[in-house]
Amino acid sequence: MYQYQDDSFMLHTDLYQINMAKTYYEQGIHERQTIFDLYFRKMPFENGYAVFAGLIHIIDYLKNLHFSESDIEYLSELGYEDDFLNYLKTIRFTGTLRSMAEGETVFNNEPLVQVEATLIEAQLIETALLNIVNFQTLIATKASRIRQLVPHDNLMEFGTRRAHEFDAALWGARAAVIGGFDGTSNVRAAKLFGLTPSGTHAHAMVQAYGNDYDAFKAYAETHSDCVFLVDTFDTLKSGIPTAIKVADEFKGKINFKGIRIDSGDIAYLTKQARIMLDEAGYTEAKIIVSNDLDEVTILSLMSQGAKVDGWGIGTKLITAYDNPALGAVYKLSAIQDDTGAWQNRMKISGNVEKTTTPGKKNVYRIINKETGMSEGDYITLYDEVIDTNQPLLMFHPVHTMKRKSVKSFEPKALLQDVFIDGEVVYHSPSVSDMQENCYRSLDKIWEETKRFLNPQEYPVDLSTELWTIKNNLIEELSNKTLE
Amino acid sequence: MYQYQDDSFMLHTDLYQINMAKTYYEQGIHERQTIFDLYFRKMPFENGYAVFAGLIHIIDYLKNLHFSESDIEYLSELGYEDDFLNYLKTIRFTGTLRSMAEGETVFNNEPLVQVEATLIEAQLIETALLNIVNFQTLIATKASRIRQLVPHDNLMEFGTRRAHEFDAALWGARAAVIGGFDGTSNVRAAKLFGLTPSGTHAHAMVQAYGNDYDAFKAYAETHSDCVFLVDTFDTLKSGIPTAIKVADEFKGKINFKGIRIDSGDIAYLTKQARIMLDEAGYTEAKIIVSNDLDEVTILSLMSQGAKVDGWGIGTKLITAYDNPALGAVYKLSAIQDDTGAWQNRMKISGNVEKTTTPGKKNVYRIINKETGMSEGDYITLYDEVIDTNQPLLMFHPVHTMKRKSVKSFEPKALLQDVFIDGEVVYHSPSVSDMQENCYRSLDKIWEETKRFLNPQEYPVDLSTELWTIKNNLIEELSNKTLE
Repeated sequence: MYQYQDDSFMLHTDLYQINMAKTYYEQGIHERQTIFDLYFRKMPFENGYAVFAGLIHIIDYLKNLHFSESDIEYLSELGYEDDFLNYLKTIRFTGTLRSMAEGETVFNNEPLVQVEATLIEAQLIETALLNIVNFQTLIATKASRIRQLVPHDNLMEFGTRRAHEFDAALWGARAAVIGGFDGTSNVRAAKLFGLTPSGTHAHAMVQAYGNDYDAFKAYAETHSDCVFLVDTFDTLKSGIPTAIKVADEFKGKINFKGIRIDSGDIAYLTKQARIMLDEAGYTEAKIIVSNDLDEVTILSLMSQGAKVDGWGIGTKLITAYDNPALGAVYKLSAIQDDTGAWQNRMKISGNVEKTTTPGKKNVYRIINKETGMSEGDYITLYDEVIDTNQPLLMFHPVHTMKRKSVKSFEPKALLQDVFIDGEVVYHSPSVSDMQENCYRSLDKIWEETKRFLNPQEYPVDLSTELWTIKNNLIEELSNKTLE
Repeated sequence: MYQYQDDSFMLHTDLYQINMAKTYYEQGIHERQTIFDLYFRKMPFENGYAVFAGLIHIIDYLKNLHFSESDIEYLSELGYEDDFLNYLKTIRFTGTLRSMAEGETVFNNEPLVQVEATLIEAQLIETALLNIVNFQTLIATKASRIRQLVPHDNLMEFGTRRAHEFDAALWGARAAVIGGFDGTSNVRAAKLFGLTPSGTHAHAMVQAYGNDYDAFKAYAETHSDCVFLVDTFDTLKSGIPTAIKVADEFKGKINFKGIRIDSGDIAYLTKQARIMLDEAGYTEAKIIVSNDLDEVTILSLMSQGAKVDGWGIGTKLITAYDNPALGAVYKLSAIQDDTGAWQNRMKISGNVEKTTTPGKKNVYRIINKETGMSEGDYITLYDEVIDTNQPLLMFHPVHTMKRKSVKSFEPKALLQDVFIDGEVVYHSPSVSDMQENCYRSLDKIWEETKRFLNPQEYPVDLSTELWTIKNNLIEELSNKTLE
């Protein structure tokens, strides 16, 4: 059997983290302070922005970080020595963590999470942090893309059965709501995160009763709010007429909220359904559809004039079907040397995009006071002060000729303190507040960056000081390799 | 905060299951016995076969099935009445479940899991069962596809950071090993499931030390088995020469197992690496690669003569990147009426493939005694006896002209008893035994069905008796809709 009495999530990491920890420990550098940045390089779905999510899981994971007895026993069986294992027993998260807020609009090549911790702690938590942020940010972003297309329709997350095991369903439902969904079919997610649960009945109920009429009637006798699923046998000949018939029979007793169609030619069927419902006097009854929907199907249905009030989105959202991985990475950007002085670190790469940015940093959104819109994000050294009385020079970090001077602006700091020296100092807002934050944050982004296809690239620039440090370090490292 | 003291997985279901449960309960049909089949319609990755996985999680989930106090409280807040909630408190899984073994080669349109339980129990567990099987079977299948391409190389699952949250990493690592992988980087998965953990060090360690030499030396001083990651700065100019230099310096003290390359032109770099290692006398040192690999990249590298001994497969495996959802469904196939007599049920659909097969069934693999190979799978009514003394007529369930008569054969029953009347009667083999079973099962499948691209369709046929019942029921239901 796979269960241990005292399992922890400490070993939810890659073996190489343990092996590096052993090296650091035995070489005596494990407690040097380090800075690691978590960020992604490529926009998911070729979207113009992403929506950050996952912080509450990170907080929970770090608060409970420790090796359980069976974790230590297991490592001992693998051959790790007692001295090292005794040290591991003392591991807790004692570092400082700063993060984007959940729901914040974020972009590639800017730190989403910044960890300042001992080398050994920072390294041991890498895998879990990436695992959390990569998935949740991906789903929140996909949900936001869908929300952009249908600002006023009801959007429900229906994907649990196709999610990648339990946690993906749970956290994916939450991320979908952060990104703009109204509710989820997953009851446990609704319970744990205060989301709106959604759903009435499935084909199985109609099959169990053998026909639409007996099934809808049974449902109406036992529920006040009724949405009937009309496509088990024949949508137009049986499902919709029967839904109307039962609504008529139960008039005044039930709230006939509408119908759901889960198969067939959705464009045609919803148009017919709208006519049939309206003719029967149910102009307020909603038409909900659900059948492998995604952005493209939704756009196509809209362009065909489909009559849809609500969308149940399953597989394509919860698996991020067209782009099922966000490639966020976690890179060392500074480390203290044996004198306690900070040394900037970077990884240069044949691939320019993979070159990291050194140092402890801050990220600001530069809001133009005249337009109220964002001019871009601006990454500085941590201690750098932005003088708002001077025009701000913003330039592309690679194509430096692309530059502008921003006059009247307000810099909004995006990274918030979450842990300071191992203590949680952050109070997480409710999920619906995160959704509100997401909308407010998007309001400051130009439409050109938010569009569904071929969005305009959003500027993520480095301050002149940071840019200079980075380029000097590249020079230095390149010269070393030439020697 | 999102945690409750007494959370359970009972609410890890869609809200409509609860709403249907309420209808069944209040209408007094909730304890009728039913049969539900779990199966998928379309082969994932357009592969010729799939590898079943997930059973141990199903067993664990069902053994612990109950509503916790806070689950009940939450449902009460949603407005469900006490009478119904009091009934829910008594819910346990009391049914019978039969399933394919993990590692079994399986195909579309055959029951993978069969649940015989009260209507209410069978319905409440649907979502979780699908959630488990859809993901785990997908990953085991993807892993098996990769294993087919490199039968003798070392295959390691490295995907945790890109998995869809924690559970996907955990169960995905296990499914990968069932499908043919040798190990995983996920230490917790290795601990819980008895897998082989794998990994040495990352770029961060080289960055922490500032150069390859100091880093490799530190690792060699603290580990006996060494695989050096050589691409942090410059693979050919620094990484590989330094790995060789450190291996020389520590000769006799460490086991220099090889190098890992994680970026750049893998084909070119591995060929150069092989030459450099061989010239230095390290002909036994392995070359491991890892960089967004999948079946196509592996084939391409092989065709270029890349020198690779081991493959670390991350993102593309753990997310099933090219086909991130298996669309398994769970359909009612029979229900007892109020006299206790079984009634076959099916869902007909405009889409022929979506039509279900009614009744309680068995699945047999028909092994030809002369060739030792499978002639196909054969689905019968549960009580039907296959007469092995007579030739067996096998025909395609839709294109019935495609038929053959099999003379000397052995029918192997594929569905195994797992729960009987709520009690577990199944003893799960170890994961390595499952992998062995997977290989043995694949040995009986023709190469034409196993090939990577455009595989031959494997026959999944119905017995004449079952086919007749199904077609009569289609006739009956179609006539009803015409009335």
